[in-house]
Amino acid sequence: MEQLTTSNVWMMVCTALVFFMHLGFALLEIGLTRQKNTLNILFKNIFIITTGLLLYAAFGFNLMYPGFEKEALGIFEFAGFGLDAPIKKDGTLDLSYNSGYTYWTDFLFQGMFAATAATIVSGAVAERMKILPFMIFTIIYVGFVYPIAGSWKWGEGFLHQLETPFYDFAGSTLVHSVGGWAAIVAVWLLGARIGKFKNGKVQAIPGHNIPLATGGVLILWLGWFGFNGGSVLSADPAKTSLTLVTTCLAAASGGVISAIVSTIMYKNLDLTMFLNGILGGLVAITAGADVMSPMDAIVVGGIGGILIVLAVSLIDKLRLDDPVGAIAVHLACGVWGTLAVGIFGKLASGAQFVSQLIGVGTYAVFCISTSFIIIFILKKTIGIRVSEKEEIEGLDTHEHGMTAYPDFRLNEH
Amino acid sequence: MEQLTTSNVWMMVCTALVFFMHLGFALLEIGLTRQKNTLNILFKNIFIITTGLLLYAAFGFNLMYPGFEKEALGIFEFAGFGLDAPIKKDGTLDLSYNSGYTYWTDFLFQGMFAATAATIVSGAVAERMKILPFMIFTIIYVGFVYPIAGSWKWGEGFLHQLETPFYDFAGSTLVHSVGGWAAIVAVWLLGARIGKFKNGKVQAIPGHNIPLATGGVLILWLGWFGFNGGSVLSADPAKTSLTLVTTCLAAASGGVISAIVSTIMYKNLDLTMFLNGILGGLVAITAGADVMSPMDAIVVGGIGGILIVLAVSLIDKLRLDDPVGAIAVHLACGVWGTLAVGIFGKLASGAQFVSQLIGVGTYAVFCISTSFIIIFILKKTIGIRVSEKEEIEGLDTHEHGMTAYPDFRLNEH
Amino acid sequence: MEQLTTSNVWMMVCTALVFFMHLGFALLEIGLTRQKNTLNILFKNIFIITTGLLLYAAFGFNLMYPGFEKEALGIFEFAGFGLDAPIKKDGTLDLSYNSGYTYWTDFLFQGMFAATAATIVSGAVAERMKILPFMIFTIIYVGFVYPIAGSWKWGEGFLHQLETPFYDFAGSTLVHSVGGWAAIVAVWLLGARIGKFKNGKVQAIPGHNIPLATGGVLILWLGWFGFNGGSVLSADPAKTSLTLVTTCLAAASGGVISAIVSTIMYKNLDLTMFLNGILGGLVAITAGADVMSPMDAIVVGGIGGILIVLAVSLIDKLRLDDPVGAIAVHLACGVWGTLAVGIFGKLASGAQFVSQLIGVGTYAVFCISTSFIIIFILKKTIGIRVSEKEEIEGLDTHEHGMTAYPDFRLNEH
Repeated sequence: MEQLTTSNVWMMVCTALVFFMHLGFALLEIGLTRQKNTLNILFKNIFIITTGLLLYAAFGFNLMYPGFEKEALGIFEFAGFGLDAPIKKDGTLDLSYNSGYTYWTDFLFQGMFAATAATIVSGAVAERMKILPFMIFTIIYVGFVYPIAGSWKWGEGFLHQLETPFYDFAGSTLVHSVGGWAAIVAVWLLGARIGKFKNGKVQAIPGHNIPLATGGVLILWLGWFGFNGGSVLSADPAKTSLTLVTTCLAAASGGVISAIVSTIMYKNLDLTMFLNGILGGLVAITAGADVMSPMDAIVVGGIGGILIVLAVSLIDKLRLDDPVGAIAVHLACGVWGTLAVGIFGKLASGAQFVSQLIGVGTYAVFCISTSFIIIFILKKTIGIRVSEKEEIEGLDTHEHGMTAYPDFRLNEH
Repeated sequence: MEQLTTSNVWMMVCTALVFFMHLGFALLEIGLTRQKNTLNILFKNIFIITTGLLLYAAFGFNLMYPGFEKEALGIFEFAGFGLDAPIKKDGTLDLSYNSGYTYWTDFLFQGMFAATAATIVSGAVAERMKILPFMIFTIIYVGFVYPIAGSWKWGEGFLHQLETPFYDFAGSTLVHSVGGWAAIVAVWLLGARIGKFKNGKVQAIPGHNIPLATGGVLILWLGWFGFNGGSVLSADPAKTSLTLVTTCLAAASGGVISAIVSTIMYKNLDLTMFLNGILGGLVAITAGADVMSPMDAIVVGGIGGILIVLAVSLIDKLRLDDPVGAIAVHLACGVWGTLAVGIFGKLASGAQFVSQLIGVGTYAVFCISTSFIIIFILKKTIGIRVSEKEEIEGLDTHEHGMTAYPDFRLNEH
Repeated sequence: MEQLTTSNVWMMVCTALVFFMHLGFALLEIGLTRQKNTLNILFKNIFIITTGLLLYAAFGFNLMYPGFEKEALGIFEFAGFGLDAPIKKDGTLDLSYNSGYTYWTDFLFQGMFAATAATIVSGAVAERMKILPFMIFTIIYVGFVYPIAGSWKWGEGFLHQLETPFYDFAGSTLVHSVGGWAAIVAVWLLGARIGKFKNGKVQAIPGHNIPLATGGVLILWLGWFGFNGGSVLSADPAKTSLTLVTTCLAAASGGVISAIVSTIMYKNLDLTMFLNGILGGLVAITAGADVMSPMDAIVVGGIGGILIVLAVSLIDKLRLDDPVGAIAVHLACGVWGTLAVGIFGKLASGAQFVSQLIGVGTYAVFCISTSFIIIFILKKTIGIRVSEKEEIEGLDTHEHGMTAYPDFRLNEH
């Protein structure tokens, strides 16, 4: 009982920290885009966290953790609508649910994760996607795609039942690449922002508020204490504290390496690359944060940092327009981190690497196809892109009838 | 002892989170007002948290938790100046004070709450109230009115001694409506900002920094993990985790419903209404966060969200000028949440509803009359409103000789 | 075991809070300087936290906590490169390392502290120091000077072995004055910003974003819950909660007194002084936060608040240019807080005061000489100051090829 109380305190703290990541994402996304779309991005982020929680309470949690029947394929099951806390005869909560946390904490911690996948997409489609189709996409993706996909591993579905089970500690794949695959599909179907690729050349469109972007990244890093630390699912002192160390060292390493590589490549001390390198390191370590040594973490995070620089450049070459670097951070480093579990750390083995490949491939196929279907249908029906006029003048005025900074004189571009 | 240690850790974490709410309030208030009064609002908020803590240490804590004599009326008692920790013979702290936290944690957690009531007023009177009378008001209201009012319930005074005790888990009434009543009185005595009501029409005066306002709301939501979670006064796993779930679901529901209703009414995806809806949901659930089911929380928060839209409209019609919507959020939803304890959740009953009505009425009478007396006297003596020139040019230059954004070119309005 | 789990949870929470202070420092520093150097300051802060953690993992931790041999002088020892967790035969972490936290938590908590010293310097040298020499200085100072200096007390070196051991609970000297001494040396070698002292008069150069500066201070105060609360090195309920109370009361007192004194001296409600007063109170209480009564804390913090106003004025008179007031906050109040342990609280005695003086003097000599050597060499080799053109146009464009607010129209100055 006392152990449960302590673990539950830790899990609640972690839940609060993961919640706080939504502010981190919001600030990062607006910071790296133009002021004229700020309010629109904030609206989307507020929509995601509120709607995401309600959907997860209504059915998401029970889609993701359905308690698969032993004989089942482990692909889809549904434990019913609403939250169904295990109640004892005397009306109190049955605390034997779990030795690390209560039913309520479990729901809330997982619920805070659920919305993240859509947030990743939000950043990638910023500055030109209509808000209504984005909201519809969010509801379907957060409400159905994310929890069903999640059930295959964390809900103990078929990927968990592989002979060498697929391993994803805190969601390099289940959260980050699930968002990342949808982001790349959305960006492709949506097209680049006006002016991004002119005469065959990539034009930098600088973000309008670098302090807020930087604050966003540090808040995300802070939130990762909970994202990874809470994924231990108890307050086990050895596991939680090792996880925090690997998480922080991977972040530091990802940032520093990314800064070095980008400085060499572009002869410029680029803060944005430094920041995205930190996020890349964090995403990369997430799949194996509990099974890596500190040195492994530095290597895995550092490779994440290199990947960021290369992926940003590659995405530009593919003429994909991802204003905030979401694909590089969440997809490239999410895949890398997942595969890294087969190469570094305690679980490293050929068999594990194969399982990691299977996992990565499964999520790629499922997420690409579902997000393509959703967004393609939206494109062909209500349309997904704002008009040229709206894009040039900004989504804030047109979608919300307000601006983010009415007292400031602004440049138009 | 071990249980105390764990609970005390939780209570300290919650204390830190409630402290952090003061940043949330500050950012929300400046975000929703004009840049020319930013520094003034920040000064007031910094004044409130620092002075509030010192006053609470000097006598507020002992006014609020006096330990009423059994035979007393339970209206007023004072346990003496300063902090008086129970010390054992060997000089160490007597930990038998409470099974959930130490004397020091108790003081600090309650102290962080104390300043909140004045902060609510700060938002409502923004952009035209002189700073000196505001400071005097704060000292009296935080130092005396809040703790005496609080003692009637949390100090186990007469409202706690009703046959069916008045219930207010974390302060929908004791904190939020105590602030809200003073806000409405202050706004009425102060008058509207120049230009708010022109030719009988309501003129929107847009807030100057929506990212900071949004950040403020998310920080407040985070802080509510501590505000409500800590009001359990221990780390009891079932109670704390249920409280966090009801809190977050009410916030989500309040936001979403508020956004839907305001979109229907005004054909506009209004971020400010979304944000205030979240706060309305949070304030509404605060009185009964520990006795509601998740579904209750969604309903109570959702009704809070509706109330926000209606109350903002009503306050405009009454020609009251509340720049940040503090009255709608803290008063309307504070009253609603308190009454909701009699209608929804474990305690719901006719008798409870009557007790809730008695509580709401008692605080209304006491807070309206005390705040009226204080502010009316200030108005008739030193004056409470800045000159027209100062208001037009901004309080920052006139009261502080500085501006908040000297490097930016600004619009004048 | 259970006690370890609980204490370790508390220490991990505190670690997260100390990490978050780096955002507080970053926001404070950019808020109090001009927009044209914003990106540069953020880059430095991101560099410090990432590089600092990696250096501390590579050798800093083992320089600071080397486990001095009993017969040694206690000045220098090195426990080897990398992190060397105590592992049991079965491969799991040996939890007997410490009763309050694991090896990993110990490393990470101390690692978060390590970078702080350089951050203090970052603020003082803002707006005119070249970034490359600053990065070199950071690596040497954080990698070597800080941990060696720290080992003398927290690593149980010679200052800990005095008959009446030097006392510095959480780092008024070991962290804050170590940064402060380097700051004053750097500022002196670097010279004032162009335009700061014109015709023998001090010209105020106002900070460009007061909301961010205020947010920074409140985040720092929040972080201090972890900085001081975690320095108890366990979750002992009496000690941790008393520490939080003294910390918060000193902050409040420092702020209020500073505001009063500066209002009397300058007839102006100066928010910056209020904010720096809070920080001064926090730095001052840090050396003895666990051995002071609440009343002691109010006095020690309040004197810190007075010192801030006087020190800012004195530093101006000395024609030293410290854009953010780092020297007043971290050096003046760091020294004061350290000496205050000999005057106030449980340890107060003549012998203790002498030990405190020895400690302050030792760190003064060591930090002044090492920082002078490092910065002087850098000055004579690669140079430490940007060109006049770069300084006037801003370091952001010249060192980073970007600006912080490209969408906003800005004033040039």
